Amino acid sequence: MGTAPGEFEIIRDYFASAAQGEGVVLGIGDDCALLQAPASGQLATSMDTLVAGRHFPEDADPAAIAARALRVNLSDLAAMNARPLWFTLALTLPRSDAQWLRQFADGLLQTAAQFGVSLVGGDTTAGPLSITLQVIGHTEMPLRRDGASPGDHVYISGPLGAAAAALPVILGEQRVDPETQRQAEAAYFFPEPQFALASAISELASSALDISDGLLADLGHICVSSGVSADVYLEQLAVAPLAQALAGKEALERAATGGDDYQLCFTVPQQQVAKLNKLDLEIFAIGILTEGDAGVRCWHNGNPWQVSSTGYKHF
Amino acid sequence: MGTAPGEFEIIRDYFASAAQGEGVVLGIGDDCALLQAPASGQLATSMDTLVAGRHFPEDADPAAIAARALRVNLSDLAAMNARPLWFTLALTLPRSDAQWLRQFADGLLQTAAQFGVSLVGGDTTAGPLSITLQVIGHTEMPLRRDGASPGDHVYISGPLGAAAAALPVILGEQRVDPETQRQAEAAYFFPEPQFALASAISELASSALDISDGLLADLGHICVSSGVSADVYLEQLAVAPLAQALAGKEALERAATGGDDYQLCFTVPQQQVAKLNKLDLEIFAIGILTEGDAGVRCWHNGNPWQVSSTGYKHF
Repeated sequence: MGTAPGEFEIIRDYFASAAQGEGVVLGIGDDCALLQAPASGQLATSMDTLVAGRHFPEDADPAAIAARALRVNLSDLAAMNARPLWFTLALTLPRSDAQWLRQFADGLLQTAAQFGVSLVGGDTTAGPLSITLQVIGHTEMPLRRDGASPGDHVYISGPLGAAAAALPVILGEQRVDPETQRQAEAAYFFPEPQFALASAISELASSALDISDGLLADLGHICVSSGVSADVYLEQLAVAPLAQALAGKEALERAATGGDDYQLCFTVPQQQVAKLNKLDLEIFAIGILTEGDAGVRCWHNGNPWQVSSTGYKHF
Repeated sequence: MGTAPGEFEIIRDYFASAAQGEGVVLGIGDDCALLQAPASGQLATSMDTLVAGRHFPEDADPAAIAARALRVNLSDLAAMNARPLWFTLALTLPRSDAQWLRQFADGLLQTAAQFGVSLVGGDTTAGPLSITLQVIGHTEMPLRRDGASPGDHVYISGPLGAAAAALPVILGEQRVDPETQRQAEAAYFFPEPQFALASAISELASSALDISDGLLADLGHICVSSGVSADVYLEQLAVAPLAQALAGKEALERAATGGDDYQLCFTVPQQQVAKLNKLDLEIFAIGILTEGDAGVRCWHNGNPWQVSSTGYKHF
């Protein structure tokens, strides 16, 4: 095509084909999408904005940007034990660029197909590059962050620190060999929403969330919402091999405070631990909840551990 | 407060109180909001982005920006004959500014209360000022744009051209007296979603949409979606008094092609026109649908009327 595509052509050519799937009565192209909610259970919805230069480098692979945007958003559904149904896209672009759009759309729709979620609407505007996605899912047994009690055990769903350690590589501040570069890009742009794990623990866990701002900050949110404190034993924390390779002796701090891994942090009452252990999941027990409002206290081999940062702040 | 509020404080202080209302099981503060959909009918959802410097002046009254953002989004629900239930907000701000946020939140929540819609979640990020809203509503009898047929009559729900004529005033390019300034701000920032009218015509209309891009462009969307053409008789078009006052002899063109009024354009089959007339609505018959794919043809006092523009293009 010789000319830059306009708004309606962008929507029609790149995204309209995606609006099919469960519950989609009417997809892209009208004032609203029309959706049929499941007869039972509840809807779960979450919205995330990714801004160029802040959440991803402006010149990053458009397909990787799209994949990260959707995976991050889907992770919120996973953290509530909701299965994905629909999502919408608000795309703000400095200019209409057919090649960038094609790559972005390919990455977005490939990710959508992988997780079984349908693009049902959105908006495209001109302006500084920014992506806002809203996902809507369905849950019969939601995992909330306000159900934890003193005595509950604290778990994480996998090793932490990879995405935080990868960030300097993604930003071009740290040069590494091609294989490490590939691992860094995978860790940062392709986090894995923990749907299967959330489903497995949904009848046992008293609270859960996804670790987006950093373990200690996010566990702090469970503490505030549930009215408890937490003791975390950092020697039990699983540190991602990539974090050890890239961050050296700072790897533990990256794992404790770095965001963007999108593993789950969840709590399980003492009386459910035996059932949990029978599930033989690859999870890591890292601490215990206590009474009071002291927040999250960290220990390392029996000594108090002082954190220099408690998570990513957007302002 | 001596310090600028951080992300969590913004959410907690300014928006969290709003998350109540019909179907809200769990509002702001967890990974997802949890929502209970009505037992029958369908959900309708729409997303709109407003970018500073493009959709509103960066230094506009924050409460007015918020009101316009939500009203524009609600208008999409009205156009589908959906009543509002919930909405989410993605707010990107260059810096954390407590006074701006307070005014924005006041305008947003006041508008939300007026239309009975609950803020259930969102995201705040740092970056160039931009607002993305997504509304979710409920409809038992949706008004779509693909149901029109040749012979249907074309209507608009009220006078057009006010918002387009107001734009130069809003942008500071046209100086007017204080009363006209007030009317211009009302027309641009406080469009009225046409919920009552949509409900009244829902059993009679064959198609409907809200006029956001301009009458001729939006009627063109009905033509494409329904596979019809349209003849529009511009002498029957109701031109807003403000458009006549501000745009003079260009008022008719503003009414035909200017966007942002958010009146409805809808079509009614011949055999339903008598019933429609009995409703005694303040609406305006402006044309007729025909066969073919000739798009929208305009006439003025019997002569073909050439438009110099067919609506706002975002790129």
